[in-house]
Parts: sequence; structure tokens; C-alpha cells
Amino acid sequence: MKNILIINGPNLNLLGKREPSVYGATSFEDYFSELSLRYLNKALLTYFQSNHEGEIIDKIHEVGFKWDGIVINAGAFTHTSVAIADAIRAVSVPVVEVHISNTHQRESFRHHSFLSAAVKGVILGFGLDSYRLAVESFLSDTLSKD
Amino acid sequence: MKNILIINGPNLNLLGKREPSVYGATSFEDYFSELSLRYLNKALLTYFQSNHEGEIIDKIHEVGFKWDGIVINAGAFTHTSVAIADAIRAVSVPVVEVHISNTHQRESFRHHSFLSAAVKGVILGFGLDSYRLAVESFLSDTLSKD
Amino acid sequence: MKNILIINGPNLNLLGKREPSVYGATSFEDYFSELSLRYLNKALLTYFQSNHEGEIIDKIHEVGFKWDGIVINAGAFTHTSVAIADAIRAVSVPVVEVHISNTHQRESFRHHSFLSAAVKGVILGFGLDSYRLAVESFLSDTLSKD
Amino acid sequence: MKNILIINGPNLNLLGKREPSVYGATSFEDYFSELSLRYLNKALLTYFQSNHEGEIIDKIHEVGFKWDGIVINAGAFTHTSVAIADAIRAVSVPVVEVHISNTHQRESFRHHSFLSAAVKGVILGFGLDSYRLAVESFLSDTLSKD
Amino acid sequence: MKNILIINGPNLNLLGKREPSVYGATSFEDYFSELSLRYLNKALLTYFQSNHEGEIIDKIHEVGFKWDGIVINAGAFTHTSVAIADAIRAVSVPVVEVHISNTHQRESFRHHSFLSAAVKGVILGFGLDSYRLAVESFLSDTLSKD
Amino acid sequence: MKNILIINGPNLNLLGKREPSVYGATSFEDYFSELSLRYLNKALLTYFQSNHEGEIIDKIHEVGFKWDGIVINAGAFTHTSVAIADAIRAVSVPVVEVHISNTHQRESFRHHSFLSAAVKGVILGFGLDSYRLAVESFLSDTLSKD
Amino acid sequence: MKNILIINGPNLNLLGKREPSVYGATSFEDYFSELSLRYLNKALLTYFQSNHEGEIIDKIHEVGFKWDGIVINAGAFTHTSVAIADAIRAVSVPVVEVHISNTHQRESFRHHSFLSAAVKGVILGFGLDSYRLAVESFLSDTLSKD
Amino acid sequence: MKNILIINGPNLNLLGKREPSVYGATSFEDYFSELSLRYLNKALLTYFQSNHEGEIIDKIHEVGFKWDGIVINAGAFTHTSVAIADAIRAVSVPVVEVHISNTHQRESFRHHSFLSAAVKGVILGFGLDSYRLAVESFLSDTLSKD
Amino acid sequence: MKNILIINGPNLNLLGKREPSVYGATSFEDYFSELSLRYLNKALLTYFQSNHEGEIIDKIHEVGFKWDGIVINAGAFTHTSVAIADAIRAVSVPVVEVHISNTHQRESFRHHSFLSAAVKGVILGFGLDSYRLAVESFLSDTLSKD
Amino acid sequence: MKNILIINGPNLNLLGKREPSVYGATSFEDYFSELSLRYLNKALLTYFQSNHEGEIIDKIHEVGFKWDGIVINAGAFTHTSVAIADAIRAVSVPVVEVHISNTHQRESFRHHSFLSAAVKGVILGFGLDSYRLAVESFLSDTLSKD
Amino acid sequence: MKNILIINGPNLNLLGKREPSVYGATSFEDYFSELSLRYLNKALLTYFQSNHEGEIIDKIHEVGFKWDGIVINAGAFTHTSVAIADAIRAVSVPVVEVHISNTHQRESFRHHSFLSAAVKGVILGFGLDSYRLAVESFLSDTLSKD
Amino acid sequence: MKNILIINGPNLNLLGKREPSVYGATSFEDYFSELSLRYLNKALLTYFQSNHEGEIIDKIHEVGFKWDGIVINAGAFTHTSVAIADAIRAVSVPVVEVHISNTHQRESFRHHSFLSAAVKGVILGFGLDSYRLAVESFLSDTLSKD
Repeated sequence: MKNILIINGPNLNLLGKREPSVYGATSFEDYFSELSLRYLNKALLTYFQSNHEGEIIDKIHEVGFKWDGIVINAGAFTHTSVAIADAIRAVSVPVVEVHISNTHQRESFRHHSFLSAAVKGVILGFGLDSYRLAVESFLSDTLSKD
Repeated sequence: MKNILIINGPNLNLLGKREPSVYGATSFEDYFSELSLRYLNKALLTYFQSNHEGEIIDKIHEVGFKWDGIVINAGAFTHTSVAIADAIRAVSVPVVEVHISNTHQRESFRHHSFLSAAVKGVILGFGLDSYRLAVESFLSDTLSKD
Repeated sequence: MKNILIINGPNLNLLGKREPSVYGATSFEDYFSELSLRYLNKALLTYFQSNHEGEIIDKIHEVGFKWDGIVINAGAFTHTSVAIADAIRAVSVPVVEVHISNTHQRESFRHHSFLSAAVKGVILGFGLDSYRLAVESFLSDTLSKD
Repeated sequence: MKNILIINGPNLNLLGKREPSVYGATSFEDYFSELSLRYLNKALLTYFQSNHEGEIIDKIHEVGFKWDGIVINAGAFTHTSVAIADAIRAVSVPVVEVHISNTHQRESFRHHSFLSAAVKGVILGFGLDSYRLAVESFLSDTLSKD
Repeated sequence: MKNILIINGPNLNLLGKREPSVYGATSFEDYFSELSLRYLNKALLTYFQSNHEGEIIDKIHEVGFKWDGIVINAGAFTHTSVAIADAIRAVSVPVVEVHISNTHQRESFRHHSFLSAAVKGVILGFGLDSYRLAVESFLSDTLSKD
Repeated sequence: MKNILIINGPNLNLLGKREPSVYGATSFEDYFSELSLRYLNKALLTYFQSNHEGEIIDKIHEVGFKWDGIVINAGAFTHTSVAIADAIRAVSVPVVEVHISNTHQRESFRHHSFLSAAVKGVILGFGLDSYRLAVESFLSDTLSKD
Repeated sequence: MKNILIINGPNLNLLGKREPSVYGATSFEDYFSELSLRYLNKALLTYFQSNHEGEIIDKIHEVGFKWDGIVINAGAFTHTSVAIADAIRAVSVPVVEVHISNTHQRESFRHHSFLSAAVKGVILGFGLDSYRLAVESFLSDTLSKD
Repeated sequence: MKNILIINGPNLNLLGKREPSVYGATSFEDYFSELSLRYLNKALLTYFQSNHEGEIIDKIHEVGFKWDGIVINAGAFTHTSVAIADAIRAVSVPVVEVHISNTHQRESFRHHSFLSAAVKGVILGFGLDSYRLAVESFLSDTLSKD
Repeated sequence: MKNILIINGPNLNLLGKREPSVYGATSFEDYFSELSLRYLNKALLTYFQSNHEGEIIDKIHEVGFKWDGIVINAGAFTHTSVAIADAIRAVSVPVVEVHISNTHQRESFRHHSFLSAAVKGVILGFGLDSYRLAVESFLSDTLSKD
Repeated sequence: MKNILIINGPNLNLLGKREPSVYGATSFEDYFSELSLRYLNKALLTYFQSNHEGEIIDKIHEVGFKWDGIVINAGAFTHTSVAIADAIRAVSVPVVEVHISNTHQRESFRHHSFLSAAVKGVILGFGLDSYRLAVESFLSDTLSKD
Repeated sequence: MKNILIINGPNLNLLGKREPSVYGATSFEDYFSELSLRYLNKALLTYFQSNHEGEIIDKIHEVGFKWDGIVINAGAFTHTSVAIADAIRAVSVPVVEVHISNTHQRESFRHHSFLSAAVKGVILGFGLDSYRLAVESFLSDTLSKD
Repeated sequence: MKNILIINGPNLNLLGKREPSVYGATSFEDYFSELSLRYLNKALLTYFQSNHEGEIIDKIHEVGFKWDGIVINAGAFTHTSVAIADAIRAVSVPVVEVHISNTHQRESFRHHSFLSAAVKGVILGFGLDSYRLAVESFLSDTLSKD
């Protein structure tokens, strides 16, 4: 059983609430329940969301020396926060960066991530499925690694 | 059963041959056998490698209107080939970009990918496991998508 | 009667307190009272100030689907916060960006605003009168719009 | 009674004529009549349009030491004319820059204005209402300024 | 019979007059006569030259909703005039940009054209023959278009 | 009778095949037949397509000292291939660069062409008609050249 | 006796906890005790740490008009926070910027500090001793100043 | 006797009129009379001012093949007009660029001149005396040139 | 006896064929014979030329773990091919980059080489003699190395 | 007793001589006497000034393997001399960079220092007191270092 | 009688010696004699040349508080020496920058001068006559200055 | 017998002295003796080292019209000295630039050389052997040049 924390950054609390005809009526909380269920026997998933950069850093410090993995979608902080990237570098738990959309198809200021050079790996563009693939990356151990 | 093509670009044919003490003695061919076996009941995997940009484009054209998915690690062409990116845009099959290493931790000219804006999603930094996660992305359908 | 929220960002709480010979002895609270009185019959004005980026995002989420308008002077966050800009994009209430000084006459890093591309309109350079003009923009409806 | 000149730059003479289904059938002349009427007791508005950079400079010189205010939408000259910016700097009458659209949501070469550092204030993104707010900025005197 | 206007920008009035040993003794007027004659049965060509940006904009407005095509060599304004580019965008008549020389073989500030993104097509480097090819582009209709 | 080679670069072999509702059902082969027929008495047209940069260079070498003209649409290689530009510089046959779309209205990396400084002239934005105008540029000799 | 506040920014709370073999087992708290003792008769030192940008701004406001000096190591906020720099500009107490490492020997995004232009002086690269030198700068008064 | 034309660009007609306490009460017309008198026996000076780019180009064309020299202070057009630079290149009369102020001590957009690469020489920073030195440059012939 | 491969990139097959009055009538094949003869007792030289990036990579792979040295003039690929640079990095045989001309005296896009950071050393500007010096670099062993 | 050399670069010999009402009448020599006296029992200070880059390099070589510390204010060479930076890298004695003024509040070309990445630490903005703090940094040894 | 120093920087000692067919056989010493003679009654001219940056700074210090003017052609140091620019700023004697050639028509790295923002005025492009015009600028006093 | 001067720039006098375990105990003087001996019958080698830019320029002037060749390793001046590059351009003797290390594998400011565009050829990355290859380049005359 692996302990994995999923961190969502600013504005991601609005998923499911804003423009449901476009983004669907599923909140991240609902998606998270489904995901937790699926990995019931393999991983214990926990969810944390904040619009405050400082709270995200505090949370990374809190679990970053004890748990088995962190999945982070830092939202807009991805492009501006050296402090979160430094927090990731400071802890020993491996961190995976995810994005729901393909950020390279959006405004040019979203093409650069301060986090990417600090994390273990990046998964982006698969919608909510990006989170599942990130969880999956912590579990698989049957194939040879490079 | 999904038909999925894995394309490797230039110099990736040397995996397992060069500096085995560093990169391991596993060739991509060996890894590919293992991977095919694992997804035996869910996907039919095919492997193609070339050091020629034109051959990669030809191959994308060949399968790009018929198969179910393409996983591409374009190697150095990632950073220079508008032509491969255009080929990906031109076909209807979804394409996933993968990298073995975390390219954002390497030389700055490797931070930009011409392919990223053309593909469905990007997975990088998980070693050879990046390929498995890419295959996985074509198979999962039980969770709600965004 | 329109419900309009005025948000002031970091350091704007010091207006009236610091260097009164330069900035005047009028605090923003005093100016706000005067402004509220002036629009007594047309608009219900509310004021919120914070030095915390996260609190400003929380506040935009809180009123952003219900009120009639937001006037924001994000202070220094104007030039660094993609997260506030995304919050503005995420809500349905129209937002107007204001600045007391003419930011284009100051240091070059103050010439770029992440918010400007997300808001409805921008008003800058009119001193505290910039706030009044912003409120005015929500009220007028007698002239043809373009 | 304040004497205020509104200057429109190149191509703004086509408002109302081009693509009426998109831009509306209201010409700037019609809007101007309405606006003049509204401020009948407070301001004497005059309107000047030219596609010639030199004529706009001549006009600024002509009224720039005598009238009470100039509202300028320099159109495309906004982004290229150091000469108009210098004319604004050379005269003593306060000048307000306006734009109908939110220029920060358009092509990147429209994000920079040579005029902004020379004018008193900028108002943009409110459609034709930008002109009214600019006129308003010359009239208000009841609230404390900063 | 198509009505086509050819517009020449600044300094192009000197063709044939300056350094005849280099540029030839043919003035543009002479070339224009020859060209008009050649297309006598297919097109009615008209010629306009000005060193004034404003006059070129006025002329585009004048014919831009009624004629069949405009061929423009804006000379140096190509590299500096957003206003002419906006005039082209504002009218409904298709416009073709031409250059006598291959501007990409000259100083680097001549490599960028503000007009190119606004016109239908660009033809450059064929000497005076660039004008004929532009006229030709308005006439052909026998081949399938893409 | 002039010998003219038309070279198409990568992905242009998919014209007519991909998204026929958008790009039409006409393949370039069909368009080429029509074009050859039209110039039957004036020019002998030959067509060559390749997705391989090396093959395009080989072909330019092969005909570049003997034929009368080359029309090249290098597709994505336009923006990346110094080698094709050098091949054009190395041969004596005049080369004309064409593009189907107006590349200046697309992504910014398509605004720069390595070929433009090496060719005689450029024609872009006229759809398939760009090819006809390029052929035309080799044939006309009745008007005075500059 | 001078009242001096030492402010540490994000992730600096982990000093001594993370990788003790590398960074030593001394926490900043321990170092601070030692430092306070050393200046017992000359200065009253106070220590404040936060991972929240807003809390740091609040603290600067709180002491910035009353105490004798502030020593700040803003950590990652050094490179991203215009708001903290503005807070420093707004208060009257002199502020000294310190860094433990020589930031010019690290990643290029750490070479630029928004704070440097706002503070009185900068001291960097002396390990924890940077803090002592900063305290020293507030105390010395026997030598002629420039 | 040499025929020399002095051209002044936009806003220079305001010299002596605007802020006489700063710029002095001497208009350029007065200075010009004094200058003409001084060179009575050596040069016939003529003066032309315009705020219209096109009129300056027309004037350069008019005298540019016949007179002995042109002294030009293009004001703000210095930094934006490729067309005036091209006019200077097109004529055979030598042109000298002058500026009253030292443009390198002003805003950065005034550091680049499109004219400098087109003229024979540049004289700047000597106040109105820059014009006298420019006239002087056309007269001296007793010293060896390089 | 050392085994040394000389690789020439695109367009270098035209040496001796194009403009013999300029480049001389000596083909590279003739020069290569002369060079082979000169080093008859010290080195076995082999020559390979291709206009195909992929073939050059294949060739580097083929000999890159067995021979004693590679001399490469990658022509235009020097400035665009990350893939050839990666191939050089991947093999164990030392590689020397040569250029016939002094690339720093040519167009600015030729000043940057992707290969230089991957090779052992660079020799450029000595005409065909650059190849001899490169061969020489593999042979000398009598002087102390640094 | 530590042997410490203070090096001053170009123009710093004018301190005290130029504009005494602004910079004070204290020459650096006077300040140096005072400083030497203060550290009489702890350090032997020596002073060297030169306007010649080469002499500064020679001096660094001379003492750079024997003394205990170097304090350098390279003046304008700070921003241009790679050679002094390399000299600092080449010697074993620790070097501290100082500046009298806060260089980040001056012209932008003074914001970059070639020396900073080569020295142990940087102290700037404390007037002449910067030198004392630098000397202090070599003496303290009672507090734990990081 | 005014005391004026002419300073020539590196490589200018070769004038007249190198390529006499191109640069003429006149050395600067000969030109200087002629120039001194011409201004015999108005100015006492002195000449100093050095290839050493430090010697030029020393010389500026030596005369910079006593003489009436300095004319400097710093040669290549123009583009690299902040130290000479600072020396000019530090002294009270007015300095005029001259160049023999029009530096704006040469390589782009010669377009920027560190000296221009520090001197009173700039004169360039008039061959050796640039020096005479510079001397002239110190003498004239009959016309009104601005 | 050819007269060849080897010039070494700043800090290269420390070779052999600094960190002998890393750079070896061989001083450049020792290497130079060995090199001179080897070419005893073909070339007369002379060695000059200086940390002073001006002395290097003086030396280039001294031998630059008489000797047969100059080999220069300008050390750090490579990246900053336009004056040495101009000296090389000014003399008639061919100059070859060498570097011991592969400068393209070091800090990015070492990738640009002001000298490269001025010299005949460049040799870098071969350790001390770079000097031998440079000497060799002046001697060989048996092979056809290009």
C-alpha cells in the first residue's frame, strides 16, 4: 500500500462548478472518489487543494519526507512559483507534475514550467486521466526501468 | 484489441549497446518484448525505429489514418523537426509524445519541443516506463474524462 | 442597485499612512466612504484588501458568480500573478483593472500586466479617480455600446 | 464649461460603415452627437478624425495650449508614432488615451503603446463607452484625488 | 473586365529617374502603360503613387469596397505601417502585396512586413514582373483553387 | 519550350487525402495534370515529392545545372533546412519559392523561411494558384524587367 | 540597543532538517541563538520565518516604521516577488538583503533579484555568516561613510 | 556659394513657443536668421519644417539631385521612418543628420536612428550649435580628408 | 596505422563541379586521393559523403565504436542537426569538426554549431587544409598534451 | 594576523578629489588609514589601485597563492572584464567583491557583474562601509558556518 | 586661447602606415600638424595616442579638471569600455566623441557606444574632418545656444 | 624558415603553476621549448605572454607587417576585446586563433569570440596540441588549397 498525495493549485477548486456544459458537471472531488476506489488495494490516495502558494509549500514539507509519492497540478503557480519548485527539490519524496490540458497548445506564458526541472516526471494533456497515469507511475514495478 | 505503433527516433537504436554499465544491458527490443507480453490481451504493439526524419514521416502517414494510437519518442528530432509535427497534425490517429529522461533537466535547447503542440499528450522523465504509461493512456476508459 | 466589489492588492493598505506629505493624509478607507456615498442610489460598494494572493483569489471565487462587477487594483501582483488572472477568467462577473498611477511612466517591469488580457477593461493614471471611473463603467447604459 | 477635443486616428472613420452586422450601424458621428448632448451643460465637445499622422500632430499643436482636454484614440498610430507621443509631451493640455477594444486581447504588436507613457491616463476595452469615461475624467472634481 | 488599382508607396516615384545605369531608364509610368495595354481586354488598371501614408490609407478606403482588387507595393511603409495594414483588413476588396526586389536579401529590418498578415497573398523578387504576376492572380479562374 | 520542375516537400503528398471536406478532394496529382495541360505549348512540367530532406537536395543537384526553372514548396523544411537553401545557392537554375497558404497568418515559427534569401522570388497565399503564378514567372518575357 | 528583525522566506525552515550530511545538523534556530548571544549588548534580534508571501509583507508593514533594521533572505521570493520589493520601498526602516549561497553560481533564474533595487545593501555567499555581516552593517558607526 | 537645405521634423516648430523658461524664447526661425547671416558669403541656407513624413520625403526628392547639401533633424521620425531613410539613400546630395540633444542620454527608444546608416555623417548633442557644425561640414575643404 | 573516416555533409559533393573558376577544378575526391597518399604509412583514410542526415547518423553508428577517429564537415547540418550531435555524443570514437571556410565571417546563422559542444575539437577556416590538420590531430603523440 | 589586500579599479583614485560637496572630502587613502588602525591587531591591510586591467591581474597573481584574502572593487571592470574574473578563479586565495553604491539602483549595464560568479561572496551598497564588512568576513570564526 | 586634448585609442596609430593606397599616406601626425596650424590663434591642440585602456583613463584624469576640452576617438574601446565612459563622467572638462567612419554603416557590434551617453556631443562619419568639427564645437560662441 | 609568433593572453602564465595535479606540472615555457625543437628546421618560433590588452595590441602592430604568422590564444580577451580583433584586421600577417579547451563546452559567455571573424582560421579543443596544429597550418604547402 502506497501513500500518495494529490495536490491541486489555484482555481482548480472550480472544476465542475464553472460552465458545466463545457467542463462537465463532475467536480474533482467526484473524480477523486472514483480514482481512490480503483486503486483501493494498491494505494491510499489523499487530496489537497489550495489557492495559497504558502499552503502548498507547507503541505509539501509536511508529507515530503514520509509518504511515497506526490502528484501535483500547480495550476497557474506552475509558471510563476520558484518557491514550490524549491520545496519539491528540498523533500525526498518523488513528485510527478500533471496538467489536465496540453499547456503547449495554450498561451505562450503557459509553455514554461518552473516545476518541470524539479520533478521526477511530467504527464500532461490527457484530461483528468493525467492524474490516473501519474498514480500508475508510482505503482508499476514489473517492467525494467531505464 | 487496439493497434498501437511505437516510433523511436535517431540514436535510440543504441540503447543497450552503448555504455551498458550506465544505461543497462537491456536493448529497447528486449524491453519491447516484455511490454508486448504485458498488454497481450488489450493491445497489439508494433515497433519502428529510424534515424531518418523522412522515414518517420512516411511511417506516420502509413498508419496515421487506420491504427488506434501512436507513441513517439522522436529523440533529437523533437527539438528540430517541424515536418514530423506537421505529419502528426495531418493524420487522424491520436499521438502521444514520450521521453525517457526529464528533458527539462538537460541542455536548454532540449527544453523546447516542436511536437508538444501537435500531440494529444506528453509523458516524460519516467525512464523506459514512459512508454508503458503512454500505452496505458490509450487503454483506460473506465474513469470519467475531462 | 448594483453590487460592486473593490479589491486592493498588496501594500495599498498603507495609502494615507506612509509619507503623508507626498501621498496625502487620506486613507483609502476615507476615499471609499466618500465614493460609496456618491453612488448611494446606484450601487452598493464593498471594499476588500489583502497582501495575500490566495485571499484575493478566494474572494474573486466567492463573489464572482453572483455580484455585478469587480474593480481590482492588484498592486504588485498585477505584474506577477497568473493565478489571479486565471481566477478572473474563471468567473462570470465582469472585472475592471485600475491603477492609481500611470504604470507606463514607471519601471519597465510595471509595464506588463498579466491581468489586462483577462479583464473587460483597463483604467489607469487618474489617481484615486481611477476607481470612480471604473464604478461609472458599470453604471452607464444610456449611450450606444460598441 | 470645458472645451474638450476628441481625436480619432486612421481607419476609425470606417466605424458603422464596415461590416454593420458586426460593428453595428452606428457611425462615430452618431455616437458623438449623442455624447455631446449628454454633456451639454458641462462640456463643449469637438471631433476631429484623420488618417494622416501629420494632421493629428498639427491639430494637437493647435489646441494643445488653449483647450481643457484632449481625448485621443490614435488607432494604429498608437503602436508606431513617436511623433504623436512627442506632440502630446510638448503641449500643456492634459491628454487621455482611449481604445474601443481591449488591445491586450489582440495581436502582440498591439500590446505596446508609444502614447501611454506620454498621456495623463489610459482607458481601454469599454467599447464606445471608453470615450464617455474619458470625458468624465475631465469633469469630476468632487472626490479627493491622489 | 476587372477594376484593379496599383498603389506604390514612398520613393517609388523615383524609379527611372535615379541612377538609370543601375535601375534602367524605364519609369514606372512607362511600365504601367505597357502593362495596361497587355491586359486591355481583361482588366482596367489604375495607378496611384504617394509618399504620404495617410493618402494611401484614404485611397484604400475609397476603392476598398467597390473595386475588384488592389496591388500594393508600400515601399518602406511595408516595415513600419500598422495603419496601412489595418486599412487593408478593414476593406472587403482582396489585396496583393508585391515587392520589386527580394526583400529577404536586404537589410534585416526589411525582412518583416506588417502588411503580409493582412493581405491575401505576397509576390516578391521578380523585378517589375512582380506587378504582372499580381494582376494575373486576380484574373485566373480556370484552375482549381485550394 | 521550358523544362520546369515542381518540388513538393513533406506532408504535401497528403493533399486531397486528408479531410477532403476541408481541403477538397483534389489531390496535387490531379491539379498538376490540369496545370501541365494548360502550359502544354510553353513549358514541360515535371513533378517530384518527397518527405526526405536529402532526396530534395539530390533532386536539386540533379536538375540544377541543366533545366530552366525550379518551383519549390518545401513545406515544413522551409523553416528548418539550411541544407536545401544551400543547395539552391549552389545550383545555377533559378528557383521560385511558393506556399499554398499565407504563412504570415499562421504560427510565428512559420514566418521565417531559410529559403527566401536563397531564391529568386517568393509567391505565397494564393492557394494552389501559387504554383501557376510561379510557372508564369518563368515564361513571361514581353514586359520590361527591373 | 538596536531592534533588528531577521526574516527568512520559503523553504528556509528546512535548514538542518534536510540532508544533514550536506547542510549540517544546525537548524537556523540554533544559529540564531548563537547570533543573538553574540550581539547581546548591541542589538535585540528577532526571528520570523514564513512560506507565505503575504505574511512576509504583513510583517514588513508591522515593524517597518518603528524598528531599526530588517535583514531579509526571501529565498525563492527573491526572484519573483515585486510585492515584497514594494513593501520594502514603502517602509522607512533600512533593509539588507542576504543570501546563504552565492546565487550567481546557480541557475540563471536565480541571478536576478527584484529586491536588490529596493534595499539599502546586499550581502551574499558567506554561508550563515551573511546574516552576521548584515547585523554588523547596522551597528558600525566609527568609520566615515560614503 | 553652396545651396544648403535645413529640414526640421515633427514638433520642432514649437521651439521657443513651449516652456520659454526652459527652452529659451528663441524660436528656430530667429536662430536660422542669425545662422544665415553668419554664412552669407559662403552658403545660401533655406529652411523647411513639417510634421508630415510625406512632405519631408517630397522635399528631399525635390532638392536631392540639385542642391549641395541637406541638414536634417527628423525629430521623432528619426526612430520610426524607414521611408525618410530610403529617400536619403535614393538622392545624390549628401545629407547630415543632426540632433539638438544628446539622444543617447534619453529614453532607450531614442537610441536607435533609422537615418544614421543612410546619411554621410551624424552630429548630436551640441544644442542649436549642432546645425552650425553641420553647415560647417559642407564648407571646409582646406584640410586633408580621410 | 590508424583507421580514420572523413564525413562530408550536404552539398559538399558539388566541390569542383560548381563555378570552377571560383572554387577550383579540384573535386574533393581528387583532394582525398592526394591526402590518402600523404598519410600512407600512418593512417588508412576512408571517405563518405551524403546529403541525408539519417545516412550520416547511420555511418557514425557503424564506425563509432571501432575506428580510431572521425573527421566531419557536416555542411549546413552543422547549424541545424541536434541528431548528428547526439550521434557523436553516443559513440566512443573521438570526432573532429572541420569547416573549409571561416564560418564566423559568413551569415550569422552559420556562427552557431550544434556539433561543437559534442566534438573533441574544431578546426575551421584553412580551406581544404582544414582536413589535413584534423587528420594530423589524430596522429601526433610526441608532444606533451594538456 | 591575516594578510588582506584591498584592490580598487578604475576611477576610484578620484574619490575625495572630485565634487567634494557631493562625495565628501575624504579620499580612499584617508579611509584606508582609519580602517587599518581599527583592525590593527587582527589583520594587516594593504591597498592597491590601478586604472589598468592588466596591472590588477598581475597583482592578483602576485598575492593570490600566498595571502589570506583579497577585497576587490573592480569599478567599471566589474561589468566588462572576463580576464579579472578568470584571474580570481585561477588563484587559491578567497576573494570578496565589494561596491560602494547599490549597483542595482543604477544604469542597467551595471546590474551584471562578471566577477560575482567567480568570487566567494558579494557585499554592495553600504558606502565605504562595504570594505569594512568585507574585511570582517575574513576574520569572524566564532559562529557556525553553512 | 583654449587648451584642447585630442585622444586616439587603439590601432589609430596605424593610420597612414597601413594600406596607404586605401587609407592615404597621411599619418594622423601629419593631419594633426595641419589642424594645429589652422587653429593657431584660437586653440592650443595636444595629441595623445595609446593602445592601453588604462593609459587613456590616466590621461583623462590628468587633464580632466584643468583643460578646456577633450576630443576622443576611442577606437574599439568605444564599444567595450565602461571604464573610459566612467572617467569621462568623473571629470569636469567637456568631452566630444568623434569617429572617422560612419560606424552605423559597419558591423552591428560597432553601432553601440558606451561613451555616447557620457559625452557632451558626438560627431561621426566625416573622415578626418570629424576632428576639425569637434575642435570647432569648443570655439564657437557667437550663435545662441539651446 | 618561417618566423612565427605565439601570443598568450591573460592568466595563461599560470599554466603549470596552478593546481599541478589537474593541469600537469608542465609550464607553457617547457612545452614551448619542446615545440621549438620539433620545428627547428622549418620555423623560428617566438613566445610572448601578457595580461595587458594594450601590450598584446602593441606586439601585433610590431610584428604584424613583417613576420610570417601569428598564433594567438587571447584567453579571456577572446570574448571581450574588439581592440585586439581590430589589430588583427589592421595587420597583413595571417593570424590563427587557438584555444586549449573546447570553449563550446564551457560557460555560454565563452562561446562567442570577437577574434574569430578577424582571423584566418580557428583551432580549439586539442589541449596544448592546438598550438602545434596552428604552427603546422603555416608550414604545409604540398596539398591543394581551397
